[in-house]
Amino acid sequence: MDLKDLGEFGLINRLTRGAITRAEPGQVGIGDDCAVFHLGDRGNALVTTDMLVEEIHFDRSQISPRQLGHKAISVNLSDIAACGGIPREAFVSAAIAHDESVDFLDELFAGLREQAHDFEVNILGGDTTGSPGPLVLNITVVGRPPARGAVLRSGAVEGDLIMLTGSVGDAAAGLEIIRYHLESAAEYSSLVSAHHDPRPHVDEGRVIGEAGVATAMIDLSDGLAADLGHLCCASGVGAKIYWDKIPRSSRFRNFVSTFSVDERRLALAGGEDYVLLLTIAGADRSKLAELLLTTCNIQLSEIGVITSGPTIELVFPDGTTHHLAADGWDHFRL
Amino acid sequence: MDLKDLGEFGLINRLTRGAITRAEPGQVGIGDDCAVFHLGDRGNALVTTDMLVEEIHFDRSQISPRQLGHKAISVNLSDIAACGGIPREAFVSAAIAHDESVDFLDELFAGLREQAHDFEVNILGGDTTGSPGPLVLNITVVGRPPARGAVLRSGAVEGDLIMLTGSVGDAAAGLEIIRYHLESAAEYSSLVSAHHDPRPHVDEGRVIGEAGVATAMIDLSDGLAADLGHLCCASGVGAKIYWDKIPRSSRFRNFVSTFSVDERRLALAGGEDYVLLLTIAGADRSKLAELLLTTCNIQLSEIGVITSGPTIELVFPDGTTHHLAADGWDHFRL
Repeated sequence: MDLKDLGEFGLINRLTRGAITRAEPGQVGIGDDCAVFHLGDRGNALVTTDMLVEEIHFDRSQISPRQLGHKAISVNLSDIAACGGIPREAFVSAAIAHDESVDFLDELFAGLREQAHDFEVNILGGDTTGSPGPLVLNITVVGRPPARGAVLRSGAVEGDLIMLTGSVGDAAAGLEIIRYHLESAAEYSSLVSAHHDPRPHVDEGRVIGEAGVATAMIDLSDGLAADLGHLCCASGVGAKIYWDKIPRSSRFRNFVSTFSVDERRLALAGGEDYVLLLTIAGADRSKLAELLLTTCNIQLSEIGVITSGPTIELVFPDGTTHHLAADGWDHFRL
Repeated sequence: MDLKDLGEFGLINRLTRGAITRAEPGQVGIGDDCAVFHLGDRGNALVTTDMLVEEIHFDRSQISPRQLGHKAISVNLSDIAACGGIPREAFVSAAIAHDESVDFLDELFAGLREQAHDFEVNILGGDTTGSPGPLVLNITVVGRPPARGAVLRSGAVEGDLIMLTGSVGDAAAGLEIIRYHLESAAEYSSLVSAHHDPRPHVDEGRVIGEAGVATAMIDLSDGLAADLGHLCCASGVGAKIYWDKIPRSSRFRNFVSTFSVDERRLALAGGEDYVLLLTIAGADRSKLAELLLTTCNIQLSEIGVITSGPTIELVFPDGTTHHLAADGWDHFRL
């Protein structure tokens, strides 16, 4: 068998099959944004970990070391936010080639510290070591779940409303600009910055976690279609979402129309927006929307409804419906 | 400035300067075997993280994937043990080239699970991603400190006895055999295995932690001289140790005499033995030694005494004394 036949999820399955030796109530392992576990009799902890590899995840000719530092922390903060938790401590491992520039590292480390500081997270430990080539960063963040327990992907039920804490597509549009329209990067700087330096929705996640009304939540890292698929798959439900309700920024709309880019592809399959997708009962909608408006100054967008499944349907304004595969919409995949 | 001028500790300083944004009582950051922190009001946690990079830390022609899996977990378990804690949850990140063999990965993952299972540790999460070349593993282990608090490097005081939970030099001798005497690997298999598949002293660490009598502790990863130096530096003390009291195995003694290898270099500067070095008040010696004998069936060895410092002295049977630098004995460094 070949690694590419296996895919990332097959690989993770092979690693983790039989990897729980102490099964405990409330424990969540592979398959959610964070792991959740009891630390003895002393309450719960959230942990998330993420590896960034040069040439695979970033290209230093495209991203500044300070932005890279921000982003490396942000993707982990977003995972804690997706569980409704509060990020607390970060651990940074770095494999560094012997001829790496100290200036580059100073900027990278400054970016890590700056972003951690902005979210009141300590960098409390780590490991630095050599690398025969690529720069490799691994960041682990430990967080505190909300008092009522971590919000998981698996709790959505039929009839729940599907909500987003922000717009989608900006990061994918930013990547498109970097790749194909670099001459317009300054004009669309907010989109480029959405790709290079996304804002993790930590405050939103915390408020939602404390409110205790979300039945399920996930952050948009793989794209709206794929991540809604993950949530539905974990919850054993389906979904119906409406194209004209999916929030897109005015810069995004301007970009796709100016450059005749496939808007649906960017909005549905473009990842790395790091907004939160959550499900709630209809009765909780107004209260949560008002809470998020007053505490975080953000507009909660309702984009659809959870169905009995198993399909995920996308409804266009003309009434036509597309079926999305549970693992994303391959047709629209970047 | 060049990276090699900076060194690993200089690099870590540059990363972590100003990296604590929430200073809290009982918090321990960079500079000990584990980080120690409060998770809200819910008690303490220990975290350690370690990155292993192909070509830097391992050579797949020399170590089997299963041994590599064992060792990758073991080095982290040893850090938890060095704080007197109990390892609980492991998180595994792996960067893997697209043409990696699935058989190799299956064996590696089996080794990780096997070793985690042997120490009742769950593999609860992780990340798998691509690599442009070397295999990179990062393992984070979360543990529970003993009830009386984590044992740190910094608590040794003048007059404390210096103890070891096992013998030193076996792992360095094993590396020597792999490098220069491969034809004798079968004959000295216990030394080779000490290098490839070291046993972390988790039970010993837990018993010592629970007994609450160690004033300071560290695991021997960099070598006796360097790690004693780290402990003395963190505690602001010196030490006097006696060459003939330092425990060496009979296989080790046999190897160094047969091959005329510099015994002092291997015993003092050879790292990766992963036994525990600890300091205790004289009054606690007999009780702790008996406890470790009855619970773990291991012999605690007294090798010297903590002094007011700042020097670390090594006394030979003929009465001659060598001074060790606080950061190890460069003369003996491998």
